Amino acid sequence: MKKLKRSARLVEMTQYLMSKPHTLIPLTTFAERYGAAKSSISEDLAIIKEVFESEGTGDLLTLAGAAGGVKFIPKCTPDIALPVIESLCASMGHPDRVLPGGYFYITDILGQPALMNDVGRMFASAFAGCNIDVVMTVETKGIPIAYATAAHLNLPVVLVRRDHVVTEGSAVSINYVSGSQKSIHTMTLARRALKERSRVLIVDDFMRAGGTIHGMMDLLKEFDATVAGVGVLVESEDVSNEERLLTDYVSLIRVGTVDARTRHIMVKPGNYFDKE
Amino acid sequence: MKKLKRSARLVEMTQYLMSKPHTLIPLTTFAERYGAAKSSISEDLAIIKEVFESEGTGDLLTLAGAAGGVKFIPKCTPDIALPVIESLCASMGHPDRVLPGGYFYITDILGQPALMNDVGRMFASAFAGCNIDVVMTVETKGIPIAYATAAHLNLPVVLVRRDHVVTEGSAVSINYVSGSQKSIHTMTLARRALKERSRVLIVDDFMRAGGTIHGMMDLLKEFDATVAGVGVLVESEDVSNEERLLTDYVSLIRVGTVDARTRHIMVKPGNYFDKE
Repeated sequence: MKKLKRSARLVEMTQYLMSKPHTLIPLTTFAERYGAAKSSISEDLAIIKEVFESEGTGDLLTLAGAAGGVKFIPKCTPDIALPVIESLCASMGHPDRVLPGGYFYITDILGQPALMNDVGRMFASAFAGCNIDVVMTVETKGIPIAYATAAHLNLPVVLVRRDHVVTEGSAVSINYVSGSQKSIHTMTLARRALKERSRVLIVDDFMRAGGTIHGMMDLLKEFDATVAGVGVLVESEDVSNEERLLTDYVSLIRVGTVDARTRHIMVKPGNYFDKE
Repeated sequence: MKKLKRSARLVEMTQYLMSKPHTLIPLTTFAERYGAAKSSISEDLAIIKEVFESEGTGDLLTLAGAAGGVKFIPKCTPDIALPVIESLCASMGHPDRVLPGGYFYITDILGQPALMNDVGRMFASAFAGCNIDVVMTVETKGIPIAYATAAHLNLPVVLVRRDHVVTEGSAVSINYVSGSQKSIHTMTLARRALKERSRVLIVDDFMRAGGTIHGMMDLLKEFDATVAGVGVLVESEDVSNEERLLTDYVSLIRVGTVDARTRHIMVKPGNYFDKE
């Protein structure tokens, strides 16, 4: 136990809460940690709550009673998210990003941990109330998004592999048709990676028809698991309604068709920002 | 500009600094943000600095002069790191983790974002003064460690692929011999992923002889880049000195030989904790 002044206590509690999102912390933990009365701790939390809410950092939920305490729920309101996504859209729209075959080079964007952290906060905010057990993605490019999202939700990450890896033990494999290439691929998930009947948030970096995500949904059936939500960083609108395999998802960015001659691309914020 | 009381200002500044590690923030940024005198801001920073240092969260560097400001350097002292690693060692030592061929199942460990965050903080702390430009790893399992490390150092991540991916543009490939399997593999890095003459921190999840990391070092030569450091989560001591390709690295965990009959494994903290 250490006696701290209120000012130092506020710094420590802020740091403690931020490092433990979606975790119930009993008031007695703080009271004992700082040798302070619960009433003082409550006053401290009220100050932190006000700053977190006015800054859009998140909510501080207070649960009363014997099993009560405080829980930090990271949030990302559209007015904070939109400038981040708009600057990303501007960067995405650069003709240099267009690769042969209509692909996009976004590896540099995915390589920015601070930006991935923002993206993860947006998804964590969108799916905060969905009672999720685990965040899932398929290797490779969705991985930073999955970890950032899971970090803000205090959940584990489950990684679907493209092939069966020797260090994973027994595994379940399925074949799926990639919508954009109409080619058949395999994906694999280790038996012990996912508990049966889990509620799963699927995230990925890019979606066109949704073949890869649809494959993950099929894989989840093998584990009796439920899809609790789907989040994609970039959604391509270069797909017909007949081809589209998925309609219920959250996207942060939408890209249109690449003009082969001018290499111009329409890029705009995704359905995360659509008015209800 | 918003006028805040000291208490609210401390909460906000703590949150702001924690979300921007290794970033120089001029005092005027805070002074303007809160409509406060620089002298008040300096007093606030002194309080935050004291808490951060006594908690082992990190250092708050103050740079004087016109180009001055404050910079948060995340740290992880051995007394904070050791309990985390010791509990990880206990979990690693479970016979269930031993797979055919002497491999280990550590996917569940790598799937915990909060734990990866701690691991990243340890590496960021170990390499804080190494003047690094970019953190590099090879897919797949090292990725969460690379992102967590890079987040704490405020650096980008560069990802080496096992094969040449169509969405990466032109790329450099090399072949390397994996030390443990004596088999030949390929690794690939997109030309535009890494600036020439970068200083690179290489991280990975597991190292035995060091063939994979040695391959990344060879790849870096193609980019005229410099290896500024190597960090591995788990180092296997099941390797002879002749086989060992690498001697200068930081490891957090050491595992010994698996006893094939009892499946017993020796697991202990890595050279991060060795006394100098």
